Amino acid sequence: MEIKIVKQILEWNEDVSDAVKATLSEKKVCLVNVMGSPGAGKTSLITDIINRLRDTLRIGVIEGDIAGAIDADKIDKMGIPVVQLQTDGACHIEAMSIQHMLSFFDLENIDVLFVENIGNLVCPAEFNIGEDFRVAILSVPEGDDKVEKYPLMFATTDALVMNKYDMLPYFEFDDKRVEQNVLDLNGKAKVFRVSTKTGEGAAEFASWLSERIAVKIKS
Amino acid sequence: MEIKIVKQILEWNEDVSDAVKATLSEKKVCLVNVMGSPGAGKTSLITDIINRLRDTLRIGVIEGDIAGAIDADKIDKMGIPVVQLQTDGACHIEAMSIQHMLSFFDLENIDVLFVENIGNLVCPAEFNIGEDFRVAILSVPEGDDKVEKYPLMFATTDALVMNKYDMLPYFEFDDKRVEQNVLDLNGKAKVFRVSTKTGEGAAEFASWLSERIAVKIKS
Repeated sequence: MEIKIVKQILEWNEDVSDAVKATLSEKKVCLVNVMGSPGAGKTSLITDIINRLRDTLRIGVIEGDIAGAIDADKIDKMGIPVVQLQTDGACHIEAMSIQHMLSFFDLENIDVLFVENIGNLVCPAEFNIGEDFRVAILSVPEGDDKVEKYPLMFATTDALVMNKYDMLPYFEFDDKRVEQNVLDLNGKAKVFRVSTKTGEGAAEFASWLSERIAVKIKS
Repeated sequence: MEIKIVKQILEWNEDVSDAVKATLSEKKVCLVNVMGSPGAGKTSLITDIINRLRDTLRIGVIEGDIAGAIDADKIDKMGIPVVQLQTDGACHIEAMSIQHMLSFFDLENIDVLFVENIGNLVCPAEFNIGEDFRVAILSVPEGDDKVEKYPLMFATTDALVMNKYDMLPYFEFDDKRVEQNVLDLNGKAKVFRVSTKTGEGAAEFASWLSERIAVKIKS
């Protein structure tokens, strides 16, 4: 019985996701869905990207959290348009929420909207939110078995950012195992080794990201 | 509409949770629900506890994973009865699954069953599984804002284990902030600072755990 109910919600979500895509295509806005565990570094990656790309792209952010507005406050202090979505207990963001929130942005003056999804390696991967592409973050302290344990997240992502890469000496983490696991699931995924703390690898990721965004907004 | 559906599932789950509790009370088996993010150290904490308590308690383990049996293999190699629950995509364990799985254990010869829930700070907290008490793990690399962001998990736990405590010098993590956040939500929670790698704090946690288990199995 439960499986049937979940399917109904997912089908409904797909329709709304398509509607969000259509709106954003018309406005030439690229939507990036950023996902990962609690504490993997989603906000740190987004703020790093803002600093690197804000001179060439007009950026907006939707911050998803179950409660509070800690991350939205950080983005707001950078002078970037941000809206906080509080899911009030829900473990993922649905397309319907994004559809409602688009009206809070001046889409004529936005090139890319980053959505920071709820910290969760499971449920967010099941729900399209109208995104052009997905970025999954896995941080070194989480361990190198996570792709095998949470396959859907990594099978559906366009890029994997291995974050906190500067912590590699302190944890048993075989980064080649992780890369191979991801490529086995998903040959198209691009893998990056990044530390948002030291800056290692971040320019390379930003460069890939801006190329992907350019494809959308110039189409 | 979605909220209504979730409530129906939760109510059904509560009935089954009560049935699991009744069965385990009759058999004098204590059920411990271990929760935390992917990579927080749930398996490491359980294997540490097995090593510390296996001479005085008869232990069994239910390993919950979306896919695979990596953790169950580790427990099996220790000679401990273990059953793998694969949720096949679901983000949490429900009481119905535990009810089915009890038949795989010789409950007359078990004092405590640990359930390692799916790595997720959100959904598992919403579902009682017949547990006597809950242990939530938060690891230092995840960051000190997680109690504010994922309140239900920490509001409903009996113990918080701050794991990877040996990593404190390498991360900005205010352990007193975390402790205060938890106590604000949940005055009855006991807070432990543990490193399953170095062993720091683990004996203290094991001692608390064995006292809690003894209350149940001698009742």
